[in-house]
Amino acid sequence: MVPGTAVILAAGFGTRMGGKPKGLVKIAGREILYRTMRLLQESGVKKFVVVTNEKYSPLYREFIEKHGFDTELVVNPEPEKGNGHSLHLAREKVEGKFVLVMSDHVYSGGFIEKAVRGEGLIADREPRWVDINEATKVTVKDGRVLRIGKGLKEWDAVDTGFFVLDEGIFKVTAILESEKNGDYPLSEVIGRAKVPVTFVDGLGWTDVDTPEEIKRARRMLIRTAVKGTGDGFISRHLNRRVSTRVSELLVEKVTPNQMTVVTFFLGIISALTTPVNLPLAGILYQLSSILDGVDGELARAQLRTSKLGGYIDSLLDRYVDGSFLALLAYTTLREPVWYLVALLALLGSVMVSYSTERFKGAFCRDAYADVPALRKLPGKRDERVFLTMLFLLYPAGLSIKVLFITLALLTNTRVLLTAYFISKKVLQAKTI
Amino acid sequence: MVPGTAVILAAGFGTRMGGKPKGLVKIAGREILYRTMRLLQESGVKKFVVVTNEKYSPLYREFIEKHGFDTELVVNPEPEKGNGHSLHLAREKVEGKFVLVMSDHVYSGGFIEKAVRGEGLIADREPRWVDINEATKVTVKDGRVLRIGKGLKEWDAVDTGFFVLDEGIFKVTAILESEKNGDYPLSEVIGRAKVPVTFVDGLGWTDVDTPEEIKRARRMLIRTAVKGTGDGFISRHLNRRVSTRVSELLVEKVTPNQMTVVTFFLGIISALTTPVNLPLAGILYQLSSILDGVDGELARAQLRTSKLGGYIDSLLDRYVDGSFLALLAYTTLREPVWYLVALLALLGSVMVSYSTERFKGAFCRDAYADVPALRKLPGKRDERVFLTMLFLLYPAGLSIKVLFITLALLTNTRVLLTAYFISKKVLQAKTI
Repeated sequence: MVPGTAVILAAGFGTRMGGKPKGLVKIAGREILYRTMRLLQESGVKKFVVVTNEKYSPLYREFIEKHGFDTELVVNPEPEKGNGHSLHLAREKVEGKFVLVMSDHVYSGGFIEKAVRGEGLIADREPRWVDINEATKVTVKDGRVLRIGKGLKEWDAVDTGFFVLDEGIFKVTAILESEKNGDYPLSEVIGRAKVPVTFVDGLGWTDVDTPEEIKRARRMLIRTAVKGTGDGFISRHLNRRVSTRVSELLVEKVTPNQMTVVTFFLGIISALTTPVNLPLAGILYQLSSILDGVDGELARAQLRTSKLGGYIDSLLDRYVDGSFLALLAYTTLREPVWYLVALLALLGSVMVSYSTERFKGAFCRDAYADVPALRKLPGKRDERVFLTMLFLLYPAGLSIKVLFITLALLTNTRVLLTAYFISKKVLQAKTI
Repeated sequence: MVPGTAVILAAGFGTRMGGKPKGLVKIAGREILYRTMRLLQESGVKKFVVVTNEKYSPLYREFIEKHGFDTELVVNPEPEKGNGHSLHLAREKVEGKFVLVMSDHVYSGGFIEKAVRGEGLIADREPRWVDINEATKVTVKDGRVLRIGKGLKEWDAVDTGFFVLDEGIFKVTAILESEKNGDYPLSEVIGRAKVPVTFVDGLGWTDVDTPEEIKRARRMLIRTAVKGTGDGFISRHLNRRVSTRVSELLVEKVTPNQMTVVTFFLGIISALTTPVNLPLAGILYQLSSILDGVDGELARAQLRTSKLGGYIDSLLDRYVDGSFLALLAYTTLREPVWYLVALLALLGSVMVSYSTERFKGAFCRDAYADVPALRKLPGKRDERVFLTMLFLLYPAGLSIKVLFITLALLTNTRVLLTAYFISKKVLQAKTI
């Protein structure tokens, strides 16, 4: 179903990018083309054909060899002509269905996953990350391209620079070759061929023509890198808003692992601050909770996610929470009965994660994806940390006791409900 | 590789079993034949041919319909003749390689998994669950059967009643049909055909001729139902010895879920006993730890394992441990600093499980199987519970403080080492 080959047009001179090949510009630590090729590969594309010019050809060759993509390089000796000609030059290298994609477009994983399963021109009716004035627009009739161009006043969708075509397209390029003496843009090929249109709306993609637009692409990559299935209320409405901005600042400089370590130490420092200054400890704790999203965002934006990284991060989070509650109890409580409450709050706190992670261990599936009811249950880490901070802002003997009771009830009830919803789901699935 | 069809010989009258078809005798809650057919199915066998007699045929038909196995029933009108004839009657129903198995033999999952991948007669050089005097013995030469019979004085291995044959065997039965007027035992077919021999040594299998032997089969099923990959020192040397005996007593009467509930309540009762009587609480806690193995043993022996059951059991274990430590601390400790130690002991206690279960969640693989170094690390639940009981037998203020310090250090060090060994393993696997 997914085409085996992708043709990448990379013959244009990046004049507004200081003459550097745009496909080799790094955003979030990865060349634009590396990102596109790797995501295409993960979606099932096996072979690549990169059409470039004589000047860039050695640079692209080096890039391809470094990353080991199965690629044929085609040199367009007349790159100053319209990029329709570059497509035409790839005609001998492809068979059947193939992906056609621009080297200066940056795509999110979510976009590519859907786009490769489309047909014809992949168009976006809700483009979020492009300058509409600069974009190529299309009107669609009966599911096919009617008109295409930058100047259209009325349009249905925006050309994403991503196509799923087949060999038939080369009949059209052959005609245009003779009509236009080899100088015609891709949009003319698409318009003439009246290719089908598949809508992939509102997902992450953008193009990069100027250094300014690199920033926009970076922001797009970070924003679409939020995983979010396990995010609670505070995470969605507060933490992610801050963490994505931090990630934008750091994504070119910091690795996910470095960020994991920094966040862990900030969390431990917040715990160690409890005997000194409770409001400050609470604020540092909430800060570490915000930063806790950054390592994952960096990893996904940099295409550096690792199961081991997620594993270690998850252990460290539990130790931050455990240490914070333990030291908070040690600092503020005196009577055994309150320690009993604190012990149950700490137990419940770890068990919230245990109860969803253990599901994954048993079923090899994500609990939040399988049992959507869990997403709405309160008591996730981001909510607990925020609550803790609130209670610590104006600490009094009673307020902290109320905090521990609240945590003990909230977490252990959540675990009970998690077990209930999961059991219900599993038993239903069996009887269906 | 695994044959698609299995022929099951079930024509013999169970004279010593009160005339009941032996294949339909229930052991550990399941008919012998249900067990064999389901385990064969899990190993890849799709179709079954059951050869039985006129009297038993309606009973077997009912059994097959109830369980929905894809089965052809063949009636042997002369069941009093040797069982070689029963095999001969199946000749039209099989093609190519097939499994041949006796209806009165009880096999463990581990045995069948290996045996279906063998060739010819599957023989056992270290039979653990059979009466050697009654067993059919074989001598082997050049990898093939040389002699076969119950009376052999010198022998190499014991016939397990499990064969992987092909159509060629029916040439031999055809000859014996005319030579012996249709009355010859299977062993004569095997001996005459000089089939190859595959050794599958020391695994769980036995045959059932008398009510006495049902007990032996039950014991075999329980003993081979011990999973054990996550078992610590105390579990291997003490808990399992007791729990398997308990399982033998309960396996016909109690479901795994019932056992999970009973064990949980015993654990909670042990925790609630801490304010009343510490030595008793410790003993009850250790008792619940022993019983904690029983639900899994019952589930495996009864072929009733469920991921949900394992999931719930695992949550309940954490709550028993958490409650026990929380109430023990509440009962015995007074100074905040000792509560701090107790909080860390409780955290570490849950984190020991979290750190291995979270691995499964991330990698969909068993941590103990993938990272054998983890098996030798001390600090597993069975060891912690036993240690706790020891410290509580002669409780004094100091001894309990030492217990909490020991638990806090033991568990959290174990988590640290778990993270270390897992990281090492994952990173090595990547660079190889």
